Amino acid sequence: MTTASSEPRGELELIRRLAARFAPPGAARGAVDFGDDMALLDPSGPLLWTVDMLMDGVDFDSRRHAWDAVGRKAMAVNLSDCAAMAVAPVAALCAVALNERLSMADAETLIAAADACGRQYGCPIVGGDTNSWAAPTVISITVAARARSGAPPVRRDGARPGDTVWLTGPVGGSILGRHLTFEPRVTLALELAARLRPHALIDISDGLALDLSRILTASGCGAELDAAALDAALHADAARLAAEDGRPAREHGLYDGEDFELIAVLPSDVPESDAAALGLRPIGCIVADRGLWLASGEGPPEPLPVRGWEHFR
Amino acid sequence: MTTASSEPRGELELIRRLAARFAPPGAARGAVDFGDDMALLDPSGPLLWTVDMLMDGVDFDSRRHAWDAVGRKAMAVNLSDCAAMAVAPVAALCAVALNERLSMADAETLIAAADACGRQYGCPIVGGDTNSWAAPTVISITVAARARSGAPPVRRDGARPGDTVWLTGPVGGSILGRHLTFEPRVTLALELAARLRPHALIDISDGLALDLSRILTASGCGAELDAAALDAALHADAARLAAEDGRPAREHGLYDGEDFELIAVLPSDVPESDAAALGLRPIGCIVADRGLWLASGEGPPEPLPVRGWEHFR
Repeated sequence: MTTASSEPRGELELIRRLAARFAPPGAARGAVDFGDDMALLDPSGPLLWTVDMLMDGVDFDSRRHAWDAVGRKAMAVNLSDCAAMAVAPVAALCAVALNERLSMADAETLIAAADACGRQYGCPIVGGDTNSWAAPTVISITVAARARSGAPPVRRDGARPGDTVWLTGPVGGSILGRHLTFEPRVTLALELAARLRPHALIDISDGLALDLSRILTASGCGAELDAAALDAALHADAARLAAEDGRPAREHGLYDGEDFELIAVLPSDVPESDAAALGLRPIGCIVADRGLWLASGEGPPEPLPVRGWEHFR
Repeated sequence: MTTASSEPRGELELIRRLAARFAPPGAARGAVDFGDDMALLDPSGPLLWTVDMLMDGVDFDSRRHAWDAVGRKAMAVNLSDCAAMAVAPVAALCAVALNERLSMADAETLIAAADACGRQYGCPIVGGDTNSWAAPTVISITVAARARSGAPPVRRDGARPGDTVWLTGPVGGSILGRHLTFEPRVTLALELAARLRPHALIDISDGLALDLSRILTASGCGAELDAAALDAALHADAARLAAEDGRPAREHGLYDGEDFELIAVLPSDVPESDAAALGLRPIGCIVADRGLWLASGEGPPEPLPVRGWEHFR
């Protein structure tokens, strides 16, 4: 192992390097780009797959969280990726490295809870790999999903100036509990995709600002968020957390990870009432100027820093 | 977390419980049973998938092993599962929990080596999940594969009394280095399946005795190994290790894990010369009496204990 403190680090930099290596510009990789929420598995048909790995002490805390809640989350984060592409999950594989002191009952609870959560969405666990070791428990779930007939997967790169930006639910403060108990927006995403034909879709795993910026980068445009609309879309947990730590609630809404709501970019001709009928709430619009902007009605829009949860920093 | 020292433990027990839960007897799960080398992904077509997770300090040792060798192994163990079902790998997902002290260059080397190994067999990495933490590095790769047209995946449950048992290469002592450098038998498996129509196939990951016993359990029969043939199929590393630790070389051949050669059960009417032409070496035959037996030519066959590498004991 070599370490060099001067080198650029961070998960984003690593993914950038891997994407450059695995999907060089111009390389034909099918209809879904490297780095989207899921990877295309079957070039001859709309079958996609995704993987998410959760680690004890990072994504959950086994001293505080019950194993069934952990297993549920391990599946739900993958289902959220399915929602983010508006595809229907069909089956999962589950790989675990169990801390050797874990009881058999707890190990079974962990995996059974993941399976039960998947089954709610038509996605049972069909195989996997079980391991144990002295280090903290790791659970990694792979999910495969299918596009509905006539409804291609919704990618990140279709946002166009004039489009509107919506959330499927309130954001901020998920660390107070919702990061474990959130409901993946699979059903809503399929309905939304069929009825509103979104130009882009992503789930909020690393924070509204960072995940929205992924749509903007892929689409080559910017977004202007409306301050009042954004404030109206804050979860009560954002205010509770703000009261605890003194940071503005809006910052929690923009930068907290693991809300697992969807950001939907809709064509400008979709009536607001159609989006509102599905429970969506507007937060802004797509603009030509690249970057993320906040308009408060006083003066020109201000640039918003783009940051969020990033591994490997 | 609860612990109870009196409960039955072990990876096999955990898998048994999970199989009972996820694939109760009589449940329709498609053409491949729960617990086979790969799971069926696409009921409408022959697409299979598998996952394997490697942990630092268990499956490799980052203090001694180079990261490119580790990445290669992480892919190769999955390709070996493809060989074990005689299907052609098509794409992979790679999830990592990187120790936070790992350099970006080493992280990239790890994943790039996995990708390079996959590409040799038509199986590039197309996506994944990158994470970091303070604990040892974990790498989990999922591989999808396709059956060749007219050649269904070879399962574990087709062995019949009178069939012959073959190895694709010598076994034992892989810990001396081959567990990192082995060549997955993908190409040979596809040729073998097309030409010899095996009744059952498995790769040796947990040891010849344990992996062969998986075929026997699934097929409801036993196997009689020929002592002289078995000794002729031992790798030179088995003898080297025996010289070091004083255990018989044959024990290393029977019980050492991670050889990643295939055990092929062939119909009795396959001419020995056809199998030998592919480099296969015979070690015994399938019998009606359940269990694993060793025939040395002196007296009746002796029962062989079935044991091997098992996690979570």
